Amino acid sequence: MTDKTSPRIKADSPPSSFTLDAIGRIESDYPDKFGIPRQPGLVRASRARLVLLPPYDDPLTVRALEDFSHLWLTFVFHRSPTRWTPLVRPPRLGGNAKVGVFASRSTHRPNRLGLSLVELTGIDTSKGVRLGLRGHDLLDGTPVLDIKPYLPWAESLPEARTGFAPEAPPQRPVVFTSEVEAMLAARSDGDSLRELITQVLAQDPRPAYRNGVEDRRYGLRLRDVDVRFRAEADASGEIILRVVEVVNVRGGP
Amino acid sequence: MTDKTSPRIKADSPPSSFTLDAIGRIESDYPDKFGIPRQPGLVRASRARLVLLPPYDDPLTVRALEDFSHLWLTFVFHRSPTRWTPLVRPPRLGGNAKVGVFASRSTHRPNRLGLSLVELTGIDTSKGVRLGLRGHDLLDGTPVLDIKPYLPWAESLPEARTGFAPEAPPQRPVVFTSEVEAMLAARSDGDSLRELITQVLAQDPRPAYRNGVEDRRYGLRLRDVDVRFRAEADASGEIILRVVEVVNVRGGP
Repeated sequence: MTDKTSPRIKADSPPSSFTLDAIGRIESDYPDKFGIPRQPGLVRASRARLVLLPPYDDPLTVRALEDFSHLWLTFVFHRSPTRWTPLVRPPRLGGNAKVGVFASRSTHRPNRLGLSLVELTGIDTSKGVRLGLRGHDLLDGTPVLDIKPYLPWAESLPEARTGFAPEAPPQRPVVFTSEVEAMLAARSDGDSLRELITQVLAQDPRPAYRNGVEDRRYGLRLRDVDVRFRAEADASGEIILRVVEVVNVRGGP
Repeated sequence: MTDKTSPRIKADSPPSSFTLDAIGRIESDYPDKFGIPRQPGLVRASRARLVLLPPYDDPLTVRALEDFSHLWLTFVFHRSPTRWTPLVRPPRLGGNAKVGVFASRSTHRPNRLGLSLVELTGIDTSKGVRLGLRGHDLLDGTPVLDIKPYLPWAESLPEARTGFAPEAPPQRPVVFTSEVEAMLAARSDGDSLRELITQVLAQDPRPAYRNGVEDRRYGLRLRDVDVRFRAEADASGEIILRVVEVVNVRGGP
């Protein structure tokens, strides 16, 4: 840092553009963007698999990974547009205030790079390499660029100062109609699907400026179903989300 | 996750290769790889600047970033070879045992992606955008691909289970000869350089299999100096690192 005034341009400057290959791809409970929690860890019931691609699917690449409970995944927001903007409107600020794109986790960012801390539930090396994940926030088909173990002694900083996102977002109560309860009871994965729907809707996936009661019915896809819900007020006036229909949209388990 | 047996190859599969651009470049106390601490946060005295590159150097891109104390930087290990290996020998295991590359933070990995949690000390937008950083582990010239704010409520998991790296590595005592003390006292940045040398050598940057007393003298570059040191035993037999010479190798401050 001898030059205090200008970026140093050196004759041997490294390239400023890099070609990166997906090392794996995500198979996820989230077939669509709408409804995906805004950070990993908020929906512990969400399950995914990370399937490594050749030539990275050698079981040696994950030797000793099972000793770590949590992983960092670096991935590409492949369904976001490649254009980026210097300012974004984080949902946490109600969609009104703008902050810099690098002060946010917005998907509309240069390079479309995502970073998620996920729980590792298992490793299957019977045919290639598949990692079982929990608590993720990853769209089905997401290309993954890297896997790193989480190191709590280096990366757990509970006292770090935050700006507009000082704590986990509040959660909405979620209720189900009796018809939906009956539909879930008839499914082999009914319990885990009910837990997933509850945790996803508790985040209130509606646009940030839609935070009150609405007549409108929303739909979101989870696994093989379309979940339809609406926002109501309970007796005390608190907003609750009611699941009014769960419709199978492709072959279920 | 309807298909339990094989990776799904879809007609509309997203591309598996991506071209990413550096959004900035690091100006660092570490001109060479040798001596860089093996994780960020271990050497709090290390300072760096991240200089954003056009068109990302718009001050709007970092609006509200100053409210966060820590940042994630995703970067490229640009001086590491592009070849990768399925197994690596982490220094933490003495360089003997091999683990999978994805169970490590090795630089010899697919895509050469690095991830560092660094402290943000200031933002200068008087001419482009420069972020002041502390506690980093980044080589001078490192191309940075993304900046994200650290969210302790989502990313601080002190109870996460770790494998071969369960805690911060032990530290060596570091001592200086009187000649070196005199040389440092004569520099305007002597105090901060002394602190930096102490913290860097405390990590014992020698190869993992070199952990005893040695006649050999090692050299490493920090800022504009070459630091020469050797490993000795103190009266009780404990290994200490002694700084025997600090040589100015380019124009100092």
